[in-house]
Amino acid sequence: MPKVLIIYYTLSNNTKKMAELISKGVRDTGCEAVLKNVADTSIDELRDYEGIVIGSPTYYGAMAYQVKKLIDESVKFHGQLGGKVGGAFSSSANIGGGNETTILSILNALLIHGMVVLGIPRGDHYGPVSIHSPDERSSALCLEYGKQIGMLVKKLYPCDGNIK
Amino acid sequence: MPKVLIIYYTLSNNTKKMAELISKGVRDTGCEAVLKNVADTSIDELRDYEGIVIGSPTYYGAMAYQVKKLIDESVKFHGQLGGKVGGAFSSSANIGGGNETTILSILNALLIHGMVVLGIPRGDHYGPVSIHSPDERSSALCLEYGKQIGMLVKKLYPCDGNIK
Amino acid sequence: MPKVLIIYYTLSNNTKKMAELISKGVRDTGCEAVLKNVADTSIDELRDYEGIVIGSPTYYGAMAYQVKKLIDESVKFHGQLGGKVGGAFSSSANIGGGNETTILSILNALLIHGMVVLGIPRGDHYGPVSIHSPDERSSALCLEYGKQIGMLVKKLYPCDGNIK
Amino acid sequence: MPKVLIIYYTLSNNTKKMAELISKGVRDTGCEAVLKNVADTSIDELRDYEGIVIGSPTYYGAMAYQVKKLIDESVKFHGQLGGKVGGAFSSSANIGGGNETTILSILNALLIHGMVVLGIPRGDHYGPVSIHSPDERSSALCLEYGKQIGMLVKKLYPCDGNIK
Repeated sequence: MPKVLIIYYTLSNNTKKMAELISKGVRDTGCEAVLKNVADTSIDELRDYEGIVIGSPTYYGAMAYQVKKLIDESVKFHGQLGGKVGGAFSSSANIGGGNETTILSILNALLIHGMVVLGIPRGDHYGPVSIHSPDERSSALCLEYGKQIGMLVKKLYPCDGNIK
Repeated sequence: MPKVLIIYYTLSNNTKKMAELISKGVRDTGCEAVLKNVADTSIDELRDYEGIVIGSPTYYGAMAYQVKKLIDESVKFHGQLGGKVGGAFSSSANIGGGNETTILSILNALLIHGMVVLGIPRGDHYGPVSIHSPDERSSALCLEYGKQIGMLVKKLYPCDGNIK
Repeated sequence: MPKVLIIYYTLSNNTKKMAELISKGVRDTGCEAVLKNVADTSIDELRDYEGIVIGSPTYYGAMAYQVKKLIDESVKFHGQLGGKVGGAFSSSANIGGGNETTILSILNALLIHGMVVLGIPRGDHYGPVSIHSPDERSSALCLEYGKQIGMLVKKLYPCDGNIK
Repeated sequence: MPKVLIIYYTLSNNTKKMAELISKGVRDTGCEAVLKNVADTSIDELRDYEGIVIGSPTYYGAMAYQVKKLIDESVKFHGQLGGKVGGAFSSSANIGGGNETTILSILNALLIHGMVVLGIPRGDHYGPVSIHSPDERSSALCLEYGKQIGMLVKKLYPCDGNIK
């Protein structure tokens, strides 16, 4: 069964709630979903997953430094994460509060690792956004995003976690 | 009196309403504000203004092609718009619908012209966003953005429209 | 055999040369590659391809308006291009001349269509960049990008162009 | 005399060399320039400067986490840095290596603080980029960027460092 790691940093639990909803969406596709606070995430385990989805609150228009630290240190495995499925999400205090640029700062990093990223034609296109705690709109988008991530992981790693 | 040109493209009138609110904010600072549909805007007049603010609906995460056409053609005056104040705003159907990247696609273009751009510490940071027609929140942000633009124009062109 | 459409806009032929190199890389993977000037591209044919790669010169930090026009008009098929593989490339006059933001303006649009996008761990990460005419470095990156695109298309559309 | 703080993070000294060149450009305009490694920079001093320019190597398409940590912690003074002049620069290993997105990740943060940012019509538009150690091209752009920053600081803080 392919596995997706959902990493989050959270202070207010809003980003964590989003991570839980995305995990549920991933599981609905039959993939395994593992949820981790960035503080509990080791770069050494990143290679063990077929998908990596990262969420951060919106701090000055980019991922929190605690998330960026993990990404900077992941250079140890540069080139070894290629082909995995990547995704991103953010919580924010404001509609135009930097949440899209936060998501894109994460997606850019995953693209640089050689990962594969998908967009969403309906709703929040680059990845789900929540203004404060996820409301009905945002919760539905998180679930759907998890499903899309899970389905793409299954297409790329169809049987046993080994890319074809 | 320094002059600010507010250019917009609109289909649903949402972006036009935002442009009107921003114009009002600009005028509140004592600057002249001229409002133009992009279809009525000639690149030959861009040099006549101390500030240029451009709004677009959110089409695939970047300014509408009608706006981009004006910007592409403004290469005729490349280097001659430097030092002017620039700004951007967008209307959108969705919170994470590409509105920040639309605003940033405009700001990037104005930066490439050598213009000066400001951000907003409260509210929509890169420029005002409206989800559908501007509501109370978005209307207040448009007014405030116009004021900030007007005040920066007056600082940079204090007396008579000639940069110091 | 899955098919990839490579669309370009060009004035100096630099972007066209890049498109040809990317096409060659795509063909090396066994996919069909079709090369089209944006002026000869109809939105009605976009659904016929399993991959769509778009190149533009760097005009004010975003795709040329001729390319944006095609993308804006592709809203006719919004939601019907989901799952296809997308890619982007740009030619530029300068290292920090807006070429990355040009590529990302295209990738953002393709993500909004629901497409799947990949990054490159070595070289130009978001898509190949050429400063003026493609030199040896840029030519190699274009070829490699085409190969990566072709291989991802084949993974997602393994047999007959029908997604699994 | 208005003062500009140039903050950098460096491992290879390439970003530090860029910072020194930008400082020289700032000083050529009659402003004071203070150069600091991010490790030696306290958020408590950010309010003491009329301009803040930040440089980072290109790590996964955004500023290094050590720089982001400073920015995240600067939330203590959110709203108090408005109106200052901001700028950014990056060193990179590759032309399309994420250097523009690194610069823009910094500029976005400074805009969110309410700062004023300028672009450059010739050369690297969002801020200077160096591929490895700054060569003649990049050195000239760093000097010129420092001058443009210094001149904008002097326009906005003309006499005594107090904004008009």
